[in-house]
Amino acid sequence: MDIAIHEFDRDTAVAPLGAGRHRGLVSPGYSIGPYPNGGYLLAIAVRALAAEVAPPDPLAVSAHYVSPSVNGEPFDVEVDVVRAGRSHATAQARCSQDGAERMRVLATFGDLGRLEGPTVELGSPPDLPPLEACLGGPRRDGGRQNAPMPNGLVAAIRDRWDARLDPRTVPWLAGGEPSGRGEVAGYGRFADGREPDTLAMVLIADAFPPAVFDLAPSAWVPTLEFTVHIRARPAAGWLRCRFTTRHLRSGYLEEDGEVWDSSGVLVCQSRQLARVNRPRPL
Amino acid sequence: MDIAIHEFDRDTAVAPLGAGRHRGLVSPGYSIGPYPNGGYLLAIAVRALAAEVAPPDPLAVSAHYVSPSVNGEPFDVEVDVVRAGRSHATAQARCSQDGAERMRVLATFGDLGRLEGPTVELGSPPDLPPLEACLGGPRRDGGRQNAPMPNGLVAAIRDRWDARLDPRTVPWLAGGEPSGRGEVAGYGRFADGREPDTLAMVLIADAFPPAVFDLAPSAWVPTLEFTVHIRARPAAGWLRCRFTTRHLRSGYLEEDGEVWDSSGVLVCQSRQLARVNRPRPL
Repeated sequence: MDIAIHEFDRDTAVAPLGAGRHRGLVSPGYSIGPYPNGGYLLAIAVRALAAEVAPPDPLAVSAHYVSPSVNGEPFDVEVDVVRAGRSHATAQARCSQDGAERMRVLATFGDLGRLEGPTVELGSPPDLPPLEACLGGPRRDGGRQNAPMPNGLVAAIRDRWDARLDPRTVPWLAGGEPSGRGEVAGYGRFADGREPDTLAMVLIADAFPPAVFDLAPSAWVPTLEFTVHIRARPAAGWLRCRFTTRHLRSGYLEEDGEVWDSSGVLVCQSRQLARVNRPRPL
Repeated sequence: MDIAIHEFDRDTAVAPLGAGRHRGLVSPGYSIGPYPNGGYLLAIAVRALAAEVAPPDPLAVSAHYVSPSVNGEPFDVEVDVVRAGRSHATAQARCSQDGAERMRVLATFGDLGRLEGPTVELGSPPDLPPLEACLGGPRRDGGRQNAPMPNGLVAAIRDRWDARLDPRTVPWLAGGEPSGRGEVAGYGRFADGREPDTLAMVLIADAFPPAVFDLAPSAWVPTLEFTVHIRARPAAGWLRCRFTTRHLRSGYLEEDGEVWDSSGVLVCQSRQLARVNRPRPL
């Protein structure tokens, strides 16, 4: 019997402090360079939010980031329930470290096991090469796989989130020029074998390299706003993910994400507004 | 000299009550059936938010709707400034009527007149037929243009927001079947000649008929979550707008919007998560 707790569940665990307050701890395991991944931080908030409402699944989660979080420090989530419905519930989270607000979150929950209504699917999962032909892979040498990225940053998150990238979408990863198509696609799963679920979607939708790397060299892509729609409970197995940036304007960009499960169902859509910071001499 | 106040500015005006509190009034002029348009309500909130922060332009606005608003009643907006920066500011609005919360909003503001950074545009405005070939148009008979839509609802908003629809995208409007492409496109401007600005984008991105009408018959499409990214200050003149729904799943759908200005610049992107309610016998 497998009683081990998975990394993601341990690293997003929150302790209830009463009156809607919860405390987590920012693991350094989800960082890009010195900064924790924004989707990971949002996952801590979603865990706290889910503890305060009845419906089990986040349907829409919106986060506005206001200051960079610090690794290894507590992460305080103060939940305010806006609407405590049984079919839908909406709540807000104020997330802070040592009193400094890091992000403000709104989330609407529902029950993806009890939906009824028409289905029309005009999209399709990304057409990916076989897993073996993708870049990335299991931890090597019994240790870390993460060599610095072309921008010089080490992505610790690569040890927790196993992204296998379609090499056609990441020419810059092998030292080539951006293709100009603004797309990054690949397979993804948790490195320790944890299966995906709706709570993990906010991390998963932010856990691939930025699609803007395929348009313009950037050292760092801080997120201003990030919204995730969770549309279905994912089947077990590899997810197929596609991220695109089509409008980079005066340094601001959107990144749109799609996450498809192993049964071919769109389980999540995401969009973020981010900025590119210029590459610095490394 | 034109000193008349435009309808949109009058209908979104808020009176400051101190301590971040503002009061507006829900005009019945932006309704679809009995309910005020969600983008219009959000515009009232954005007016109040803008009054409390320094940067002039909303960059990202996220709204979670929790109960239907009532026409003709006061609309109270309580603003909480999360980050009061000069280049970026983030604030939250709690919107209520007679104490009942209607929606919770997060917004990040910036200055779209002072951006610098790279631009790469992979998209393009919708390819629309000439204005004269589009459906909709100026008020007729000196009065209202809005006959009931195929779902039986009267859209009062059509008298304030002049949408000229590409007939190829709205076959259902003339009694035909949905095309199954999930797209609605057209020109848009305020009916009274007010030029577009960044504050109006949250209305504009919700002021066209739902794209899901081109996929499945629906009586009503209530929004759960709506996020708008404003990317540039719009030039004067007709806007070109495109709305798409590609994933209708168990009655839940996303609607993605793009608003392009008369100079060919993408000024706004939007996405909402909504539900379709089944048509009722009329």
